[in-house]
Amino acid sequence: MTHQQNLQIQLASRPTGAPAADNFRLETGSVGEPADGEVLLQILYLSLDPYMRGRMSAAKSYAKPVEIGAVMEGGTVARVIRSRHNDFQEGDIVLSHSGWQSYAIAKGETLRKIDPSAAPVSTALGVLGMPGFTAYAGLLTIGKPKPGETVVVAAASGAVGSAVGQIARLKGARAVGIAGGADKCAFIKNELGFDAVVDHRSPDFAQELAQACPDGIDVYFENVGGDVWKAVFPLLNSFARVPVCGLIAQYNQSVEDAPGRDRLPMTMRDILTKSLTVRGFIQREFVDQFPQFQREAAGWIADGSLRYREDIVDGLENAPQAFIGLLEGKNFGKLLVRVSQ
Amino acid sequence: MTHQQNLQIQLASRPTGAPAADNFRLETGSVGEPADGEVLLQILYLSLDPYMRGRMSAAKSYAKPVEIGAVMEGGTVARVIRSRHNDFQEGDIVLSHSGWQSYAIAKGETLRKIDPSAAPVSTALGVLGMPGFTAYAGLLTIGKPKPGETVVVAAASGAVGSAVGQIARLKGARAVGIAGGADKCAFIKNELGFDAVVDHRSPDFAQELAQACPDGIDVYFENVGGDVWKAVFPLLNSFARVPVCGLIAQYNQSVEDAPGRDRLPMTMRDILTKSLTVRGFIQREFVDQFPQFQREAAGWIADGSLRYREDIVDGLENAPQAFIGLLEGKNFGKLLVRVSQ
Repeated sequence: MTHQQNLQIQLASRPTGAPAADNFRLETGSVGEPADGEVLLQILYLSLDPYMRGRMSAAKSYAKPVEIGAVMEGGTVARVIRSRHNDFQEGDIVLSHSGWQSYAIAKGETLRKIDPSAAPVSTALGVLGMPGFTAYAGLLTIGKPKPGETVVVAAASGAVGSAVGQIARLKGARAVGIAGGADKCAFIKNELGFDAVVDHRSPDFAQELAQACPDGIDVYFENVGGDVWKAVFPLLNSFARVPVCGLIAQYNQSVEDAPGRDRLPMTMRDILTKSLTVRGFIQREFVDQFPQFQREAAGWIADGSLRYREDIVDGLENAPQAFIGLLEGKNFGKLLVRVSQ
Repeated sequence: MTHQQNLQIQLASRPTGAPAADNFRLETGSVGEPADGEVLLQILYLSLDPYMRGRMSAAKSYAKPVEIGAVMEGGTVARVIRSRHNDFQEGDIVLSHSGWQSYAIAKGETLRKIDPSAAPVSTALGVLGMPGFTAYAGLLTIGKPKPGETVVVAAASGAVGSAVGQIARLKGARAVGIAGGADKCAFIKNELGFDAVVDHRSPDFAQELAQACPDGIDVYFENVGGDVWKAVFPLLNSFARVPVCGLIAQYNQSVEDAPGRDRLPMTMRDILTKSLTVRGFIQREFVDQFPQFQREAAGWIADGSLRYREDIVDGLENAPQAFIGLLEGKNFGKLLVRVSQ
């Protein structure tokens, strides 16, 4: 096994605006040997997530940027193919943060075992993993939907958004999804069971959103920003809560010098006069809730009340193009790269 | 007594931009007779507060606007001069919401008795009243300062700001005040005991604020907006909390079409990457905490750890000019009008 070549996708240069293929570089190297306490992993699935756009930039954020020439970061599901750690055996399936590569060496302490009999192992990167937990913790801890309230989420067919709407409904709230295109909208309404769905590509999007929210919006789970925010903001009710989880629509833009009139004074005015809560978060702040999330979510998946869709791309070499498409909303469901079988 | 004339200041027209004298009209009328369950009040003090600017506009907010031709709204301390309510006797001092006038009739249920032996009765409109409670509830419930954290507040010699900084210190935090002019700054540092103070009129204000906050800002109690926000925002630490209580710097501006680059994308980016909480509020949301506030604040005043300053203007006819000055930061301490002795 260790005679295999390790394929890696490295950050070749930092993008200005949308990432392009030449910001990434495919390299091959040797696989290496685990030291004492380490294991050698063969990566099965790589998760592609919008937050990775932030890691490609040098700007200060809650996490360090990826260095030029370093392997792109990312969550992975992997098989242990050699173990020098007592807790792991060859053949174990684990969650790791091994990045965009086909093999990796990892310390045992950084890994979490996955039970392949409980659910498809890929769900550890989606509905049962970081995206599902982001939805759960942000919605319930910050959004706090009450029965009968209206919860709006964009990218509603995606990994986070699909879970937000379904969990909102499980808690008795009304879920309104926003997505781009008829296929996604039909899926959100018919398969995920949202109460209403609005296509942000419609020329009458703002008006259609208002019609879908006749009682206003009590919780807006913000994961896109941009034009969706413009349509949502006037509909927020007094005491509405806005967990801010992502801003995919502006990740490729310079925000230091955004054109147009200044919307901050108006936003602050409404935050004041409507007693709004706007709260940024990342899921690891709520890590204490992870075990409870796993129990609840596994139950919901088992009884069919929490559904999910995966969009699986084959081959690590296709990861850059898939990631570029993710930022444009081209994926349909949780985007994963199948690195090996 | 009831043969006295009632002086009233009514809203004559809605201001565009800063209010001017001709937006107000002084009228005289008869005093009237209380019906069963009502009392006749002689107003002693009228409170002037920035929120009143909002009531002069027709825009939707958390409270209805004052109608053209109606008496300007406001909190008052008054003496009962005739009672047809069993709980009140002639001579009682009460807190009422009688507005900009010299006499008023009020239902007994809307009044709260004030004990003149406990503290000067004017404090019921300041440090022991709505402004003090706004500081207390917003700081402790939303700001949640921890010992050693840095709390910044602007208009720090004013009714709300002075209490915010002192309560922050009582809870073990470091208080940094912002005010305009050397007199106010000296008062904040020397009399109120803030740890540091910065003059927003200084040409190097942003840099001086950064120097006064070497560990960044954990709580920014927002009651001004405008240029102060620009200087504060880059200094906010991860997980900082921003209770939004007022935006006096923009009350006289149209915010629907503010000039300049759009600062909203950058603001949202930082809310996300720093996990910030921005939360608008008005004190009545936290009314359950009012009795506890009164007990705690009375104790702090008694032992000298909560100080306050009043800026008293004599004569109801001077209220409009005093209010216009308030919006320009001309007052020094809690602004009150002494309506009668």
